[in-house]
Amino acid sequence: MIRAAIIGASGYTGGELLRLLLDHPQVEVAAATSRRQAGTYVHQVHPNLRRRTTLKFSALERLEPVDVLFLALPHGEAQGQIDAMVRLAPKVIDLSADFRLRKPATYERWYGSPHASPAWLDRFVYGLPELDRQAIRGASYVSGVGCNATATILALLPLARSDLWDAGHPVLAEIKVGSSEGGAEGNPGSHHPERSGVIRTFSAFGHRHTAEVIQAFGRDDVTLTMTSVDLVRGALATVHVTVRPGVTDKDLWQAYRKTAAANPFLRVVKEARGIYRAPEPKILAGSNYADLGFEFDTATRHVVALCAIDNLMKGAAGTAVQCLNLMFGWDETTGLTFPGLHPI
Amino acid sequence: MIRAAIIGASGYTGGELLRLLLDHPQVEVAAATSRRQAGTYVHQVHPNLRRRTTLKFSALERLEPVDVLFLALPHGEAQGQIDAMVRLAPKVIDLSADFRLRKPATYERWYGSPHASPAWLDRFVYGLPELDRQAIRGASYVSGVGCNATATILALLPLARSDLWDAGHPVLAEIKVGSSEGGAEGNPGSHHPERSGVIRTFSAFGHRHTAEVIQAFGRDDVTLTMTSVDLVRGALATVHVTVRPGVTDKDLWQAYRKTAAANPFLRVVKEARGIYRAPEPKILAGSNYADLGFEFDTATRHVVALCAIDNLMKGAAGTAVQCLNLMFGWDETTGLTFPGLHPI
Amino acid sequence: MIRAAIIGASGYTGGELLRLLLDHPQVEVAAATSRRQAGTYVHQVHPNLRRRTTLKFSALERLEPVDVLFLALPHGEAQGQIDAMVRLAPKVIDLSADFRLRKPATYERWYGSPHASPAWLDRFVYGLPELDRQAIRGASYVSGVGCNATATILALLPLARSDLWDAGHPVLAEIKVGSSEGGAEGNPGSHHPERSGVIRTFSAFGHRHTAEVIQAFGRDDVTLTMTSVDLVRGALATVHVTVRPGVTDKDLWQAYRKTAAANPFLRVVKEARGIYRAPEPKILAGSNYADLGFEFDTATRHVVALCAIDNLMKGAAGTAVQCLNLMFGWDETTGLTFPGLHPI
Amino acid sequence: MIRAAIIGASGYTGGELLRLLLDHPQVEVAAATSRRQAGTYVHQVHPNLRRRTTLKFSALERLEPVDVLFLALPHGEAQGQIDAMVRLAPKVIDLSADFRLRKPATYERWYGSPHASPAWLDRFVYGLPELDRQAIRGASYVSGVGCNATATILALLPLARSDLWDAGHPVLAEIKVGSSEGGAEGNPGSHHPERSGVIRTFSAFGHRHTAEVIQAFGRDDVTLTMTSVDLVRGALATVHVTVRPGVTDKDLWQAYRKTAAANPFLRVVKEARGIYRAPEPKILAGSNYADLGFEFDTATRHVVALCAIDNLMKGAAGTAVQCLNLMFGWDETTGLTFPGLHPI
Repeated sequence: MIRAAIIGASGYTGGELLRLLLDHPQVEVAAATSRRQAGTYVHQVHPNLRRRTTLKFSALERLEPVDVLFLALPHGEAQGQIDAMVRLAPKVIDLSADFRLRKPATYERWYGSPHASPAWLDRFVYGLPELDRQAIRGASYVSGVGCNATATILALLPLARSDLWDAGHPVLAEIKVGSSEGGAEGNPGSHHPERSGVIRTFSAFGHRHTAEVIQAFGRDDVTLTMTSVDLVRGALATVHVTVRPGVTDKDLWQAYRKTAAANPFLRVVKEARGIYRAPEPKILAGSNYADLGFEFDTATRHVVALCAIDNLMKGAAGTAVQCLNLMFGWDETTGLTFPGLHPI
Repeated sequence: MIRAAIIGASGYTGGELLRLLLDHPQVEVAAATSRRQAGTYVHQVHPNLRRRTTLKFSALERLEPVDVLFLALPHGEAQGQIDAMVRLAPKVIDLSADFRLRKPATYERWYGSPHASPAWLDRFVYGLPELDRQAIRGASYVSGVGCNATATILALLPLARSDLWDAGHPVLAEIKVGSSEGGAEGNPGSHHPERSGVIRTFSAFGHRHTAEVIQAFGRDDVTLTMTSVDLVRGALATVHVTVRPGVTDKDLWQAYRKTAAANPFLRVVKEARGIYRAPEPKILAGSNYADLGFEFDTATRHVVALCAIDNLMKGAAGTAVQCLNLMFGWDETTGLTFPGLHPI
Repeated sequence: MIRAAIIGASGYTGGELLRLLLDHPQVEVAAATSRRQAGTYVHQVHPNLRRRTTLKFSALERLEPVDVLFLALPHGEAQGQIDAMVRLAPKVIDLSADFRLRKPATYERWYGSPHASPAWLDRFVYGLPELDRQAIRGASYVSGVGCNATATILALLPLARSDLWDAGHPVLAEIKVGSSEGGAEGNPGSHHPERSGVIRTFSAFGHRHTAEVIQAFGRDDVTLTMTSVDLVRGALATVHVTVRPGVTDKDLWQAYRKTAAANPFLRVVKEARGIYRAPEPKILAGSNYADLGFEFDTATRHVVALCAIDNLMKGAAGTAVQCLNLMFGWDETTGLTFPGLHPI
Repeated sequence: MIRAAIIGASGYTGGELLRLLLDHPQVEVAAATSRRQAGTYVHQVHPNLRRRTTLKFSALERLEPVDVLFLALPHGEAQGQIDAMVRLAPKVIDLSADFRLRKPATYERWYGSPHASPAWLDRFVYGLPELDRQAIRGASYVSGVGCNATATILALLPLARSDLWDAGHPVLAEIKVGSSEGGAEGNPGSHHPERSGVIRTFSAFGHRHTAEVIQAFGRDDVTLTMTSVDLVRGALATVHVTVRPGVTDKDLWQAYRKTAAANPFLRVVKEARGIYRAPEPKILAGSNYADLGFEFDTATRHVVALCAIDNLMKGAAGTAVQCLNLMFGWDETTGLTFPGLHPI
């Protein structure tokens, strides 16, 4: 058993981490901090945890050293405190966007201001095990992933790994997302009468998660177009990409199957019958699976690559726990076995 | 053509009034005030009105006299300014809760503080035409209705009018409501991830609209229990009541048909087949209909009386326009002909 | 007053036509046929029409001649009966897909079997007034539009009209749709527990409405990718297109404004503030508006063109009534003035 | 490890049982039968189980003896085959309504036809552990529970156990339910455009689950009124009941706390602040908790007792697994530890 603490545990990502760590067989949750909720029982903010823990949110100032520290602060807050944070634990997993990009200039370009601790950027490993499991195994400092970046990267991963992707054409990821992606703080657009039933293309260009996809594959011509729909948890990336001349349907099947076989949380969903023929995020709520699928137009070499995830799990807290498992040498799926529900 | 102004037009009730009055053949909308949105185009707040009007929200201070004034302010704000308001127009329709109750003591009991202008309470007529159309016809000052009170009163109206109701048993109205009932201002509980998919019994006893039902029928033993569900517009009152000994199913049918025949916006919905066998609020969105139904257990004399409405229409702005029509001697249904949509 | 009849009036498009025609000031609805529902009151199938009409569905065999005939049959049924149909009325508006394409070979390619009455194809005019209002004015036979084709065509129309579109790049329309698009007949995937909360990419390539877009613009490299989301009415087309070198943001604004100015049901929605900054289908329920918007990445000349519609209105029955108005020389907006609701 | 089989595993209850048993540390799933789906992979029907099992649905005829048999057939099918079923396993848990009532006459009254195997009725124990855990521990044959009966019984349990309930007044349970309660087979009313956004009071009197509540407490004057709302999983019972003279708020708190303390899956939810102040079914999806709450009007002795459950878990498969645990002497919570999600 190791001791873990979560900084900023009152948000949605923090709550999901709590749910996972409280049931993790190798972890004891030593503390969960929240500036605003300090003193409140955890279950009063995360009502699913009632009767599962008597933990209260505590103040960051009173935190004692632990074996691993999860940072679930709003974006921008961890970077200025990272030197203090690392003194609290030998291993740190930051779930914000603060340490996802390796280069200070890239950070500044996408986030609009210089990074507060640029020297720390290349001490962190980008925490998507499907991209580089080995790097995470040896890392002390791991950054979390952007949920939309995760869906896009995993949709493209089989094509990239099998070198099927034609670099001469741009990549367009059309991503549809639920409302939990916006976090636990409301805004006028998240008020239920305004948010219910939407199909709202809120970002056509320039979404910050684009930078993670570019970094992952070393290609610049990537666009993420974001549309909110009526769902709480879940994201689907419908990624339009062109494959090399001569690529066959069989090549694609092999690429997808090979990638899924090498990764315990990837599944290929491509059925000829039934209701769930393609990846569908709603059945992934609470699960760490990323479901992959594809359609192929041989005439134009146009592939529609699909990836469905639960944005709070595989897109945030689930992948963070997957990294934790790798960092401590445990089975990668420990504490991440909930399969999702049907119907839901 | 008369000239109308709306005070407090940026909320949901104000927006619905604007939609109705802009299309009303007898009305010219002279002004729509909003403290917060003054200077903004009306269609930037109420996007359905884009290309229907070039009106901008104005400041209350600059309002000029009109023929009729609609007050759509938050509850509590109109009562202190009523003397100034009535100088702006010979006829005033207040859609807040400020002038719904006739007695100052009743107001204080239900709203928790003394009324700011108690002398004005009995100058207002309670604006539910189905209760007393004649009083509204002659009135200069008409108060709006509480949406939940409207649904409960109309569910019970056929029983009351035909004297079928057994006064020896309490009345229990179980009301299910959509999120627009909470108004345009968000709160933590209206944040989409928290409000989506709820079945939330937020008030078991003491809802303020209870007072309007008590006043309408002169009976005290009335309980309104309120549950929020996942819908934006709409309320269904499922009202449990006991009828007198000897009442038959035929008596009930006669009572309902008679009430519907006397009121252009009441419909009896009680089908043996099909999908829409009973009143259903969703098909009433945008419509001024109140759909009534009932089920009867002869053994126990227990009647389940149903009333479905669009809370922003028959429960607020629609009934206000209905009162306007009566006050000016026009056909009661003028400007209120939208039938609702199916499917929706 | 002219006399109109609707063939196949028990489906969703037929019901929407009924709603519109029953309130149309120039039209008397003489008959509404339904094989399955003959003898049933219209309001038992379309519950929003209760108390608005005492019409019953009738059998097709008993139909008497009228001034205009609307065909709202399932796709494939009208084409074999068209000779008989035109004997019933001098003007016919067919809302199915049967007469949308001008060339028999095109029909066969997209619909998989030869057309039953190929000679009739070029007697029909494609009924999208924004494409060719003049042709509809003089037509006796007008075909309806595919809802997804409508959204895509209208999204692209300003670019096409102002010749801004770079023909050297393919067009990709990512369309998100509600459940009413599938029609009134259920299937396993439309069962609420399975359909609720979906983000379901059900067609990556080859959607039949693609053929209408190709026909409208004379360009072949068009892909429609279809995703179902949790909404009943509404479709949003997010269309990715490339503009010519040198095109500026100002050019785009001019193109959009010019197109909107020339068409009473097109609105440009592109706001810097507020909740509804871009086209949003939910506020269009029941309305005939098509809301257009765009985003522009000058570096890549990539335009994201948006169009939101109510698929049953502007995507079907609303446009059909718009055509009716043009065919009879009435104001194009007659009977189509409902502006939509907010909130909803 | 014991061997279990599920008869009728392709429905929603069967799928939920599969999910639970596949992860149960003491159980091996030997077979899952389905007449219609025999030969199909389980994950093609229950997509959440993809990559969790390679099991295929099998034919009932090929079933070999096991240690425990779960029957998840449609109501009415198990009763005629029970003699054959019990030869397949020493312990049987039937999740249908066939063996919930102890008396043949009661069965016939509520289900409208005589029971096919009346002698079997009193060999079954009603499988709600919170009512009689001891009886289940020793039982070979256990019946499942009705979901609405479960919610009503558990809402009332603290009052019954502490003898606070005044028998002189009727009990009224107003139950709001999601769409999964109707099962996996669609019908016209479950078609998404019709079922979305409903508040549909589909049964005012006579719901069959009423019989289970009457049987549990030995009281006849119980009414269940059922309303469908827009949610897939979840039921909330809002139960109106009168308590004895003299009962205080403190008595109620003690009764609820005592009952919750004695039952691992009952929680009292009654908060003065926060969003989740009362039982809310949506956060229970996938969980076996039943959340209890109450409001009390001292003047009238009227208690509104609340119980929220996931109808497929605590209302069906979860309680069945809880019974399994008791029947085999394992910890009652084995395999039932998923706490539910927030947000969802």
